[in-house]
Formats: sequence, C-alpha cells, structure tokens
Amino acid sequence: MTLKLHNFFRSSTSTRLRAALNLKGLDYEYVAYVLRDGETKTPEYLARNPQGLVPTLELEDGTNLGQSLAIIEWLEETYPEPALLPADPLGRARVRALAYMIACEIHPLNNLRVLFYARDKFGADEAAQAAWFTHWVTLTFDALETALATSPDTGRYCHGDVPGLADVCLYAQVWNNKRFDIALDRWPTIARIFGELDALPAFRDAAPPNQPDAAA
Amino acid sequence: MTLKLHNFFRSSTSTRLRAALNLKGLDYEYVAYVLRDGETKTPEYLARNPQGLVPTLELEDGTNLGQSLAIIEWLEETYPEPALLPADPLGRARVRALAYMIACEIHPLNNLRVLFYARDKFGADEAAQAAWFTHWVTLTFDALETALATSPDTGRYCHGDVPGLADVCLYAQVWNNKRFDIALDRWPTIARIFGELDALPAFRDAAPPNQPDAAA
Repeated sequence: MTLKLHNFFRSSTSTRLRAALNLKGLDYEYVAYVLRDGETKTPEYLARNPQGLVPTLELEDGTNLGQSLAIIEWLEETYPEPALLPADPLGRARVRALAYMIACEIHPLNNLRVLFYARDKFGADEAAQAAWFTHWVTLTFDALETALATSPDTGRYCHGDVPGLADVCLYAQVWNNKRFDIALDRWPTIARIFGELDALPAFRDAAPPNQPDAAA
Repeated sequence: MTLKLHNFFRSSTSTRLRAALNLKGLDYEYVAYVLRDGETKTPEYLARNPQGLVPTLELEDGTNLGQSLAIIEWLEETYPEPALLPADPLGRARVRALAYMIACEIHPLNNLRVLFYARDKFGADEAAQAAWFTHWVTLTFDALETALATSPDTGRYCHGDVPGLADVCLYAQVWNNKRFDIALDRWPTIARIFGELDALPAFRDAAPPNQPDAAA
C-alpha cells in the first residue's frame, strides 16, 4: 500500500505520526504544507480534512484519515507488528493515559492558532506567549514525571522496553517545547526517555529538523 | 466488580465516562469532588491521579485509571458488549477521529483552569471568557458538522444507529456548552444527534443535572 502523509515538519501531531509509521516500518510519500501560508485551509485540503489540520493520512484508495491518535490506532489495528500498545488491557490503559496527558492537556493549548488568539485578542506578546506555553507544559510534565518515575511499569521507554504510543507523543512534545527553549532538567525521567528515543532511527528520522520541508 | 467513579457532575470528561459506563450496563459507586474547593489537589487524590483531574475510575483491586478516553478504551476491551466502537478498522478510525476532534480540540481549551488563566493573566472578563469558549467550540463544531453531515456513515447517531465513543464526547460537549449558553442552531446535525442521545436513558442518566452532587 502506498500511503501519503499530508503534514508539516514542525507540527507535533505530524511528528507523532511519522514516528509511528517509522516504528511500523511503513513507507510513505511525504507531502508538505506551510501552515502559516494557509495551505491547509484551501477547498482541496478541507475536502480531505474538514478541520484543515495536519496530519492527514491518505490511503491508496483515496480514503483520508484525520486526527493523529486515531490514525495511529488504525495503524495498530491494521499493521499489528511491532505493537505500539502492550497486550494487557491495564497496560494499554496506562499507555493511552500517558499519551492523552500530552495530547489532551498540553498540545491543544500550545499550537499556533491558540498562540495567535492570545496575541490578537489578549495582546499577549512573545514573553506572555512563552509563559502561557511553558505553564501548560510544566503543569502536565510535572504530573507525567511523577507518573513515570513512580511506576514499576516504566522501563527504558514510557512502558517497558518497547517504544509505543506514549513515546511518540512524548518525543513530539519535547520537540515542540524547543519553540520556547524549555529545558528538561526539571523532569529527569522524561529527559532520560527522550534521550533513549532520540537514539532510535525511527524517532530520529521523524524529528522536525530531519524532514524535507525543514530547510525552507 | 465494584467500580468507584471519582468525578464531578459538571465535568465534561466525567459525563463522557458516566455515559460509557451506563451504555455498558456497569454499576458504579459515585464519589463526588468539588473542583473549585481543590478537593482533587489533596495528597490523597494526587496519589490516585497525579494530574489532580477527574475522572478517575477505581477498580476493585485499588487500581486507579485516569484520562477519560483511556478509561473508555479499557472498558471497551474489558466489557466488549455492547460495543462503543464499530468492528471495522476504518469505522473505528472515523469514530475515534470524531471523538478526538472534541477531546483534543475543544475541551482542553475550555476547562476551568484555562478560563482562570485567561482571567488572571490576560484580564479576560466574563465576556472575553465567553468569546474564547465560543470561538473554540465554533471552530471545531463547524468542522464536526461538515464531517457528520457529509458522511454516509452518519446515522441516527455519529456512526450508524448504535451510540458509541464519538457520541459520549459529543453529548458531554453540548452539555459543557451550556456554561455559556451556546445554541446549536448553527449545527443541525449535531443538534439532531444530541436530541437522539438525550432521549436515551444511558445518556440522560449521565447528564450533569442528574448527578447526586448537582444540587449543592
């Protein structure tokens, strides 16, 4: 199957999905969009993805899948090996909860459209935007650090020694944090896991600076 | 199994989970917390849920599960019938994407702690908070309306004629919208589905005003 990934190098949700595709060993065609230029708000793109968001995964038959975590669950069901979720329901609940801590508590507050709203409606300057961004990262990373540091289920990665769904979210979020130079010193377990992930080609090849549209 | 639901009547994520438990026909003990009084920030509660968020589902053996969508996926795997996700992977991807549109794009921006931040740091008064809340609802409900209205997969509910994961998120979000009196006229398909869901006891019994702590 030829998969087409409609995405943007710096998009955190795109980074998640690239890492998941790489972990599954799936090849894909990279289609880049410049978000600031409104390239995902065209009628053509909106027909693929009514939210006008990246990423969209286009399947060979033209079906378009949206929402990174829904796409990754689809990948997991369609290409089960290697697994991105553990086999036991409690382990799966833990991994999904760690992933959603990032996907539902940090990322939505810190994407571009939200920063623009804060700037345009609340007059938030660069410093106020950085404070906002850092606040939401810190609030949830503090809890994530506790969850990871205190659980015997944490291994080399977020859950045991096999990278999975929580790891792709964590890896993408740490990259996203670089927008405001947020250091990881406060969260040693997160920092350690990020380092482990960054040494894996599947993750490194998904990182924003290593994408074809990063140079532009 | 005796399940304990640590939650708050007005919490949208709690509403989702209550509806899912009801759809599965699972009985649970209701444990209420007053968020404004910091009752989820005590050491005892933080030991259950390091984020200090509701809901938490406590299992009979004392295991605590956090993050509403992770809990619902656990319910689905542990109590498969009636199913909250369709059987086919593309259908599952669609339902999860609809659910995440709400869970990852609307709800995180509009919960209390975010409104308080806007008030305290940006001086957002009640009108500015209402504008913020309404903006994020409208942005994603417009796309959700398109996704629902244009797909042959939409039925009586979000996906066919069986209520599921997307429906519990939609139902909870529409209740949440009532905080700022957001009318549904702009989104006829969402309004229709909400009406269908609100006629089902599993949903109606999960609605905020019908909880034991709603009177207080």
